[in-house]
This record gives sequence, structure tokens and C-alpha cells, in this order.
Amino acid sequence: VNEGSDQKIVPVILSGGSGTRLWPLSRTRRPKQLLPLFGDKSLLEATLERVKDPDLFAEPIIVAGEAQAEAIGEILRGRGELIVEPCARNTAPAIALAAMNAPQDALILVMPSDHLIADVDAFSEAVRRGRGAAQDGYIVAFGMKPDRPETGFGYITRAEPIEEGVWTVEQFVEKPDKATAESFVAGGRHDWNGGIFLMRAGRYLDALKMHAPAIFEAVRRSVDGQSRLEGRSSPDRGAFERCPSQSIDYAVMEKEKRIAVVPARLGWSDVGSFETLHAASAKDDADNVVHGDVIAIDCLGSFIRSEAIAVAAVGVEDLVIVATTDALLVVPRKRSQEVKRIVDALAERERLNLL
Amino acid sequence: VNEGSDQKIVPVILSGGSGTRLWPLSRTRRPKQLLPLFGDKSLLEATLERVKDPDLFAEPIIVAGEAQAEAIGEILRGRGELIVEPCARNTAPAIALAAMNAPQDALILVMPSDHLIADVDAFSEAVRRGRGAAQDGYIVAFGMKPDRPETGFGYITRAEPIEEGVWTVEQFVEKPDKATAESFVAGGRHDWNGGIFLMRAGRYLDALKMHAPAIFEAVRRSVDGQSRLEGRSSPDRGAFERCPSQSIDYAVMEKEKRIAVVPARLGWSDVGSFETLHAASAKDDADNVVHGDVIAIDCLGSFIRSEAIAVAAVGVEDLVIVATTDALLVVPRKRSQEVKRIVDALAERERLNLL
Repeated sequence: VNEGSDQKIVPVILSGGSGTRLWPLSRTRRPKQLLPLFGDKSLLEATLERVKDPDLFAEPIIVAGEAQAEAIGEILRGRGELIVEPCARNTAPAIALAAMNAPQDALILVMPSDHLIADVDAFSEAVRRGRGAAQDGYIVAFGMKPDRPETGFGYITRAEPIEEGVWTVEQFVEKPDKATAESFVAGGRHDWNGGIFLMRAGRYLDALKMHAPAIFEAVRRSVDGQSRLEGRSSPDRGAFERCPSQSIDYAVMEKEKRIAVVPARLGWSDVGSFETLHAASAKDDADNVVHGDVIAIDCLGSFIRSEAIAVAAVGVEDLVIVATTDALLVVPRKRSQEVKRIVDALAERERLNLL
Repeated sequence: VNEGSDQKIVPVILSGGSGTRLWPLSRTRRPKQLLPLFGDKSLLEATLERVKDPDLFAEPIIVAGEAQAEAIGEILRGRGELIVEPCARNTAPAIALAAMNAPQDALILVMPSDHLIADVDAFSEAVRRGRGAAQDGYIVAFGMKPDRPETGFGYITRAEPIEEGVWTVEQFVEKPDKATAESFVAGGRHDWNGGIFLMRAGRYLDALKMHAPAIFEAVRRSVDGQSRLEGRSSPDRGAFERCPSQSIDYAVMEKEKRIAVVPARLGWSDVGSFETLHAASAKDDADNVVHGDVIAIDCLGSFIRSEAIAVAAVGVEDLVIVATTDALLVVPRKRSQEVKRIVDALAERERLNLL
């Protein structure tokens, strides 16, 4: 065990998503991470709760889009640091913004703000397990045990064990086809890439400089020109706008050699669609998730949520029904991904108040 | 042909229904007949239009419930007579209210206010065809050509022809079982009872006095005590409340011998559920009926109507989706009848503002 094993970890929470996959619940100014989808806390609040143990974590850094900065500021109430992205440039630049604003030897734990982790103890345990490897210079990913051959996720292939519960990584595989996904789930050597990474800030920046120098340089200039006011940093817009838009997976993880993975069972869900939201939610005897002013008679396997008008459903099966004050969605649960088609149609019709 | 063959006919329009089968569109104060379900006219307005030919029809009598009297008064704008039912007692008493307020030798044409008749010329033609028999003392029903073995309707069995297109009636059969309904449709001697009747006012009252004397007497007392103001008659409440509640079919037609039927193809629909409303409405290429602020992608055979919020549906099939300002209904088209269960549940929960 490394001598700095009790070094506190700086949580870096990425809240740049303007996800529309839960439309009409999620909107540009009220993205998924700000919605109280499970109980009365938003996913962002739950993410902050998850890293509040002062023995393990330092104050967090939140990287968020401009449209949500106000709402997030209210949630933080002075806690941590808020870095406002001038525009969306995907995760590799967003993480670099945080890494450049942290001490270079600090351990940063990068996390999405809009995922569900049901088992917080297992999460802390996994983070503790990965800390040594991160201090030794690995970029440590956390692998989520797959329970279905999902083709929409990235997979991490384990190579050799480094220590108890920590493995070197053979490869990152982005969105495999169905047959490959099935062999991954059957093989037992592959985990879902949950988008959570632990590493030294300087180690990430070195890797970025090597594998994606244009991103590194653009973020460098943007941070050099950043302004700061009351716990809120605003990197230079012009420089950041010129930064390539890339995910950490593509820009770094797929190219980097010194990567480790901590496989974990965290009760994880990306809450990426109404289908997964239904799967991750508490259900009644008929497999329905019902929320708000809803009368459901003889319904099965459905997700029915009202934030406004009275919703009455009779005899529907495997259906998603979501009503807000200004919009209603109805879609079969298995076709939840096609909510995107609605959002595209609304954009095309310039129904901006509905986006 | 009878010498009084050009006698004008007094339309009697029954608008007492507080139908909830089209909830949430239909409400206590906005029943089905007041809704613009086809184009921009309500079914009541269309019913009034249908009897406006001054060569054939006199001014109409409308029998309506108290809750709707105001709205109906606005539609009539001084035309015809409005009789306000103190309470709902089904059709036999309602028709008696009208018959007692008409000259006893007048021909009255009793009609529901909430049915669709697409072919107005065929309607006028059928009425003309039945006039002679009505003047000769028959109670003349109009038989709607059945196109499916519907078990929710009454059927009229033809006996012998009286004249061209007019038959005596063997029997009225209320709501047959499926096998019987199938044999009726196959046999060609049976028509649906569309609830339209032509007869002398006095003839109806004589039949009522014979077959249902308690109804006759109660209505008699109620009309004796009625008040009248500006084309609006209000029969005595106490007397009418003590009247038995029965349909004309049960109180008179099933017992009366001297009945005739005029079979007709009127493009008729009782618009008794979202299923029949869908069937009777103009549809797009994918068999959808879409109305209001709706985005429907890859939908089939569905009835989607919004009177308020934006409604987005993807990939739904044979579904009814109806949104109003305060309520939403989702039900499979084939289960449209079960809307009643919603209305019952709302009543049980005392959600009176939704009824």
C-alpha cells in the first residue's frame, strides 16, 4: 500500500449534459441530473451526498453548462467549486478544466452527475480499493457488472490482477454489436464503463497532452484566461470554443496503456431512457412505476408520471406516459430511445419553449 | 297516401345525457352533444341543422338537463322551445314532457342530440317515408343497417311490409348476446334501434298511459305544474322526481303492438365510445385520428386529441390519448368502454371537478 493511502480525493462532478432522453421531464434548463427521479432528491444532489464523507473526500469540483449554472449554484450553496463550461465540448475537455483547477498531485474522482448508484457503501469501498493504483500512476476506471448484453454502452476488458479487486485493462470497447455484447456478458471478463475515473490530476493532463494535444492546449489557454468570482470559475470562452469536442473514452482511455479497472456492483444505472428509469425505480405489484396524480387501472409494466394534470390510464401495458405542465409523452417502454425523434421534431418546428 | 302528408313535423331533441363515456372530453356540464367532435359544430348543433328544412319541420322542442340548460339556450338563441328536466329520468318521461307540450295531433320526431348522422338527405328521405305510417297511428322507429354484431345496441326485427320501405315490427330485442347478434346481422331482417321515433304526440301518450301509467301520471302532474319563461318550460320538480326512470324502449316499444320501422342507411353512429368516435372520424393514412397540438410519429390506428398541452406519441398502436386542460386519458381503443371505470374511480375519490 502506498504511503499516501489516506490522501483525500477531490470529487469532479460532470454536469454538462443537456440530456433530452427523458423529455418532457428533462429540458435544456432542467436536465436529467436536476430532476427528483428517485424520491425527492435530484441525481446531482445524490451524487454530492455520495462524496460527502470527509475522511475520504475533499470538497467537490462541479463542471456544469451555463444554462444550469444558476440552478446548480443553489444546490451547492457555497460548497465546492463550480466551473462553468462556456459551451459543451464533451468529457475530455470538461475533465481537463477540473484537472487544471486542482493541485497536480491531487487524486480526482471523475463522475457523471446524472447516474444512479444505489449502493453507496459499495461505491466508497470501490473508490478506496482503486486509490492505491491511482497514486501509483494508473488511470483507474470503475467497471459495472453487466446484467444484459447492452449495445449502447462501452465495455472494459480486464487483463491481469494488480492487487485485490484491481486489474490492468486489456482494452476499451465502445458500443459493441449484439453478438459481441452477448459474448462479453457470458465471458465474465468485461464490465460496463460507468464513466467514473480516479487518477492524479497531473496524470490525466499528461495523458491528454500526449494523446489529444489540441484539447490540452485549448483548455490550457481557456484556463489561463479564466475569471473567478465567489467559488465560480469561468474559463475563457473563445479558447474553449476552439477546443475539439471529444469524450475521455475516445481521447484518452482507448489510447492510454497504463489503465486499471475496479470491477464493482454499485446498483448502477445510467438512467439513460424511460426504459432504464423504469428498471431502476420501485415498482408496484403489476410492475408499474406510478408517480403524481395518476389513476392506473389494470395497467402492467408501465411508467406513468404526472407533474401536473390528472392522468388516467386503463388497460395499458409496457407503456410510458409522462405529463408535465406543458407537454405529454406516450411511447411504448421498449421504444423509449425514440423520444429523441420527438425532440428532433420539436426542434425542427422551432417549439423552443418545449425543449 | 294520407291526405295530411305535408303536415310539418315537430323535432323533439333529447339532450338529457350527461354521458361520461368520452371522458375527459365529456363532463357533467359539457356532455357529448355539446362537444365539437366532428369539425367545429357540436353534435347538438348538427342535430338542429338536420331538422331546419322549413318545408318538412316545424320549430324544435329540446328536452335538456338543468346542468346544460344554459349552454343549450345559447345554441338555440331563441329558436324552438326548451324544456328543462328537473332531474334525469331516462327517455320515456323526457319524451312525454315534449309530447304533453305539443298539440296532440302533431307529428313528433324524437331524436337523440348526441348521435352522428352523416347522410342528412337520407335522413330527410327516411323521415318523409315514415310520415304516412305515423299519421295512420303507428309509432315509427328508424332502423340503422348494422355493419357488425354489436352487442351493446338494441335490434328491431322486421315483420311485413306496409308500404315501400316501411315494415311492421315483429319485436324489439335489447342487447343480444354475440351469437344472436351475429345471426341478426347475417339474417338481414334486423336493424339497430337508433333511438329515433316518429309518431303523433297523442299516440305516444296513449301508449305510455296503457303500458306505463305511473310514468304518464307523474309527467302529467309535472307538466300541470310547470312554469314558463321566455321559451323555456320548467316542469314541476317534485312530481318529476317521483316519476319512474325508464327508456322508451322498455316502457313502450317492447310492449306496444302497432309499431313500424323504416330501415335506413344514414351514416349513423351513436358516438358511444372513443372506439366508435375513431371509427366515425376522418383518419390519416395510418388510420389515426389526430386533433390539436399533437406530434404523432410511427403511430397506427390511434385516436390522439389534445385540447391543451403539446402531446407527443411515438410508436403507439390502437391507442386512445386524450388531453384536456386538467386531465389525460390513455386507454387501448378496444377497451374504450372501460373509461367508465375511470369515471367511477374519480367519483369514489370525490374528484368532482374532474367529472
